[in-house]
Amino acid sequence: MINVGIVGGTGYTGVELLRLLAMHPDVNVKVVTSRAEKGLRVDAVYPNLRGFNHLCFVEPSIDSLSGCDVVFFATPNAIAMHMAKDLLDAGIKVIDLSADFRLKDVATWQKWYGGEHACPELLDEAVYGLPETNRQAIRAAQLVANPGCYPTATQLGFLPLIAANAIDLSMLIADVKSGVSGAGRSASVGALMSETGESFKAYAVAGHRHLPEIIQALKQQASSEVSLTFTPHLVPMIRGIHATLYAPLKDRQLDLQKMFETFYQDEPFVDVLAAGEHPDTGDVRGVNRCQIAVHQPQNGGVVTVLSVIDNLVKGASGQAIQNMNIMFGLDEAAGLNYVGLYP
Amino acid sequence: MINVGIVGGTGYTGVELLRLLAMHPDVNVKVVTSRAEKGLRVDAVYPNLRGFNHLCFVEPSIDSLSGCDVVFFATPNAIAMHMAKDLLDAGIKVIDLSADFRLKDVATWQKWYGGEHACPELLDEAVYGLPETNRQAIRAAQLVANPGCYPTATQLGFLPLIAANAIDLSMLIADVKSGVSGAGRSASVGALMSETGESFKAYAVAGHRHLPEIIQALKQQASSEVSLTFTPHLVPMIRGIHATLYAPLKDRQLDLQKMFETFYQDEPFVDVLAAGEHPDTGDVRGVNRCQIAVHQPQNGGVVTVLSVIDNLVKGASGQAIQNMNIMFGLDEAAGLNYVGLYP
Amino acid sequence: MINVGIVGGTGYTGVELLRLLAMHPDVNVKVVTSRAEKGLRVDAVYPNLRGFNHLCFVEPSIDSLSGCDVVFFATPNAIAMHMAKDLLDAGIKVIDLSADFRLKDVATWQKWYGGEHACPELLDEAVYGLPETNRQAIRAAQLVANPGCYPTATQLGFLPLIAANAIDLSMLIADVKSGVSGAGRSASVGALMSETGESFKAYAVAGHRHLPEIIQALKQQASSEVSLTFTPHLVPMIRGIHATLYAPLKDRQLDLQKMFETFYQDEPFVDVLAAGEHPDTGDVRGVNRCQIAVHQPQNGGVVTVLSVIDNLVKGASGQAIQNMNIMFGLDEAAGLNYVGLYP
Amino acid sequence: MINVGIVGGTGYTGVELLRLLAMHPDVNVKVVTSRAEKGLRVDAVYPNLRGFNHLCFVEPSIDSLSGCDVVFFATPNAIAMHMAKDLLDAGIKVIDLSADFRLKDVATWQKWYGGEHACPELLDEAVYGLPETNRQAIRAAQLVANPGCYPTATQLGFLPLIAANAIDLSMLIADVKSGVSGAGRSASVGALMSETGESFKAYAVAGHRHLPEIIQALKQQASSEVSLTFTPHLVPMIRGIHATLYAPLKDRQLDLQKMFETFYQDEPFVDVLAAGEHPDTGDVRGVNRCQIAVHQPQNGGVVTVLSVIDNLVKGASGQAIQNMNIMFGLDEAAGLNYVGLYP
Repeated sequence: MINVGIVGGTGYTGVELLRLLAMHPDVNVKVVTSRAEKGLRVDAVYPNLRGFNHLCFVEPSIDSLSGCDVVFFATPNAIAMHMAKDLLDAGIKVIDLSADFRLKDVATWQKWYGGEHACPELLDEAVYGLPETNRQAIRAAQLVANPGCYPTATQLGFLPLIAANAIDLSMLIADVKSGVSGAGRSASVGALMSETGESFKAYAVAGHRHLPEIIQALKQQASSEVSLTFTPHLVPMIRGIHATLYAPLKDRQLDLQKMFETFYQDEPFVDVLAAGEHPDTGDVRGVNRCQIAVHQPQNGGVVTVLSVIDNLVKGASGQAIQNMNIMFGLDEAAGLNYVGLYP
Repeated sequence: MINVGIVGGTGYTGVELLRLLAMHPDVNVKVVTSRAEKGLRVDAVYPNLRGFNHLCFVEPSIDSLSGCDVVFFATPNAIAMHMAKDLLDAGIKVIDLSADFRLKDVATWQKWYGGEHACPELLDEAVYGLPETNRQAIRAAQLVANPGCYPTATQLGFLPLIAANAIDLSMLIADVKSGVSGAGRSASVGALMSETGESFKAYAVAGHRHLPEIIQALKQQASSEVSLTFTPHLVPMIRGIHATLYAPLKDRQLDLQKMFETFYQDEPFVDVLAAGEHPDTGDVRGVNRCQIAVHQPQNGGVVTVLSVIDNLVKGASGQAIQNMNIMFGLDEAAGLNYVGLYP
Repeated sequence: MINVGIVGGTGYTGVELLRLLAMHPDVNVKVVTSRAEKGLRVDAVYPNLRGFNHLCFVEPSIDSLSGCDVVFFATPNAIAMHMAKDLLDAGIKVIDLSADFRLKDVATWQKWYGGEHACPELLDEAVYGLPETNRQAIRAAQLVANPGCYPTATQLGFLPLIAANAIDLSMLIADVKSGVSGAGRSASVGALMSETGESFKAYAVAGHRHLPEIIQALKQQASSEVSLTFTPHLVPMIRGIHATLYAPLKDRQLDLQKMFETFYQDEPFVDVLAAGEHPDTGDVRGVNRCQIAVHQPQNGGVVTVLSVIDNLVKGASGQAIQNMNIMFGLDEAAGLNYVGLYP
Repeated sequence: MINVGIVGGTGYTGVELLRLLAMHPDVNVKVVTSRAEKGLRVDAVYPNLRGFNHLCFVEPSIDSLSGCDVVFFATPNAIAMHMAKDLLDAGIKVIDLSADFRLKDVATWQKWYGGEHACPELLDEAVYGLPETNRQAIRAAQLVANPGCYPTATQLGFLPLIAANAIDLSMLIADVKSGVSGAGRSASVGALMSETGESFKAYAVAGHRHLPEIIQALKQQASSEVSLTFTPHLVPMIRGIHATLYAPLKDRQLDLQKMFETFYQDEPFVDVLAAGEHPDTGDVRGVNRCQIAVHQPQNGGVVTVLSVIDNLVKGASGQAIQNMNIMFGLDEAAGLNYVGLYP
């Protein structure tokens, strides 16, 4: 059994880790930390966990986490960077669900996230945890930077096209839509149901923190410059991300369907739908799966890719567990093989 | 492995059986029938099942179901009663999720459901499948009538009070609220999102088909007459039932909390919350669990019970699988032990 | 034109006053206060008001409000009681949408709302602003205590039965359900869409602040003691309250439909539906109307009343304007005669 | 008073016409037709209209409509084209909310809508009813083809850019999202709340009927070819359309904010937000208004326009009334000047 610690167990990615790890056959959740809820039973805060988790929240510290084999950070940004080094030095693997180790360039990180990075020397060592592109490196990693939700859905949609050198990278468009759980579990007027229910809007059009992460990843895959317009939107639902991606095709005659099916044929958690289909976030609710469809409307010069995930699973906690499975040599799908909750 | 057939695999209770049985360790889903979708792949209709089910829908018939150990009817009312006898005669167990075998009195059935009952001789043999009251009989049953969703939530709330002879049965009130999946997956104006979203209303106040089922069950438990006012409401959400139950207390000094905790202490799927708590349908989303709280506002003469389930799981398909587990001598919780999908 | 001031213009009842008053033919909104948003344009905070309101928020004070004929308090509880006296002394009428002046008994107020009441001497003078029971007194009032949302829906449902002495007042039940806008526009985890969407629960079963208000009002109407069990619930929608009311009938032979129709025949904002109908909160969305249906299920001994309002209109700001119309001798329906926004 | 007839009064655009026209100061709704509901009171089908409409539905016919000054068709496609000629011949103006007269090219119409067009000779005479581009022609029109909802939001977003010759028309992208009321009020599994709630998906990516309408209009404005990729999506809300539009800029130095403000400065129903803002469908709920924001992310080569409307108002019935006002020489804003229903 792998002993797991979770730092920041009271946000949505934290409770989603708790949900999935409670059912994982090879895991023992040993420590769950929360400054705010210290001393409270975890299942008093999250009644869905009653009968599955008998722990109480403890103060986060290297000491309290010392018996763990791996620690997940389900914290706001700029927390993990203060604790990761000590944990790694103690021989504990770290999987960070926040953005602290996602960007390789410290100046870029500081521009988008503000403040000083507490631990720039780990940026090189950190492995970007998208198994579909980095499986080998993840296997050997001590520190994994788990991708953002938008970046996961967006990259998985563009990757086959980039690998095939099929698109003009100078005008990529990612029009992405997220359920409100992406905003996290902290009190804010903007995430009230009265504000977000029965409403739809874009936000952060001028620039969203996930933009540099996506560009970094696409550039690396393409080995060339990439120009991306990225527009996030808020959908009046709780879970789910839908990325609608556009790119100019270099050649209108390509068999895009076959390209996508071949590219993902061995991937356990990316599912290419049949030609003409439209994925629905509701079909991946609660599960670690990306469903993708590729279209070429009117056989024209633009490819349209539709890519859906559950932002809390393949976009966060599920992918983190997938990374853990790889890091510990487990079956990559261990504890992740569920059917989506439809309807 | 138990070979399972599902008749009527295209409604919400059907697809929920498919979801749960796909993950059940002791079950092989062998046949799924649907007249309307005959020949289509199941996972083409339900993309959430991609990778978990490779069957095509077939025409329902005794022949097509002959290799099954048990057949679930996830059909509209008045279908199972035409096929149950032949299946039982062929040695196949039957679990009916519709209302065909729930009422013992054929005249009452005909009053509330209309038409002739095709198979009244089986009404006596049929076992009402609420494990919390009928576990012994279910163990030996060949034909189980799976309870309705409202009746499950309502009975589980009233049962401890009736067993303790704590309430006046002449003025029971069940104010119950259901998500829209209870209306099923058939085209109707009334269940459109434009009609049910952002709206709340009662319906069938004059009399709902679940009323005689609840009264029959409560009378049997109480061994006396019961007078119940039952008001169903439609909630703008997909899954979940919340029953708010009221009864006059015979004695204001009873320890209601202890009464409930003791009554359900050995039940795997009924969870009594701590004193003062309020259950939330969102905490049992997707799982076979009833969460209950009991209150005595202002220490007055009325007890208020709050009881929540997922209407498609403990209110239908999950409970049906719980019954199957009991009938086949499996661990009662086999294939049902999941954490609720929150948020 | 009546010059209006609004104290606390940034909550949902405040912006709803702004919406309705912007279209009122006899009103000039002169001052809108907000400490937090001081200096900002109102329509920058509320883009739905663009083109209808050119004011900026100002600091609340007797000075800034001195040119008003009437001031609405759309504030949290315990604000109006500090300013009302000075405004009244300055000859300005006051309509308080908070709870400061609703309860006649200061001890009861202090028990349910906590702290000292700043202005108990005004409690007698304050007129409870339910026009259907208090129209005469409102006409002459300088200070109106606008009813709560639950109390409005509940009283309007019980009133005809009490007036006709038709029910046993010792076991009244009000099972009420509210959209989330009732929780107000302040940041809280509990009102996040991720928490309230796709979920349904009761809250404050042990005792809600609207309970003493309802009991005070029903007692006054009945001229006798009243025993009420009151259970509020949270519905995953933004606007709307549905009260489902139960009472034992003294006589099963009464013509309840006629009783209700007669009682409300001259009321402009209470609409009794035809026999057998079920009101839907979606039919009164955005308008100052209560729709009511009365049922006697199975001709039994319990009457069931269904009463719906928009909590922000007839349950708050619309009713406040109705009170203003009465106080100033305007047509009672001025600025309130709209069709509900369906769907 | 203008006497109005409404053909097809039972769909969502029909009931929205009824809502808005009931409050219009210059209109008398004289006839409402519905084959299915013939003989029923309108307000029995739509309780939100109680007190505002005392008509019964009648069979549609030239006779029943003969006393009208103008007839609105709120019908499915391929109905109006059979009745329009006779009404026009009788001197009655016609405003068609369906697609029968939107496309000038009959072959294109037949390709996208199927079947023979019953009345191709009227296609030339029909005026496309987008006041922002066609006000003069509408003034003189006898037959107005009211634009589709997606085309309205999309055109209003692209128009200033086209007028300024600011964008490369060979790679336009319109990523548009609609609430479910756009699917109409007819029974279908796909529009059930259980299917559309808590879910998000694209549909008709291969080609949607609004594509040729948008292209026809943009080409006419641009006087050149236009290549557009158009992706509609379904949002789990009832009302609202959000168009997110992308185009390559010919010049990165343009003052886009000023371009938009100037272009729409005299338009009563198009509202350009301040620089940096993001429109929200919730701010135009129930009203005849388009709110627009224009962005140039990272000062790059792509312009992003955000355009929101209520699909049933500015996207259908409100715009139809705006057209009627223009056709009859009324104040263009008569009966349309309301504040959006927020929250």
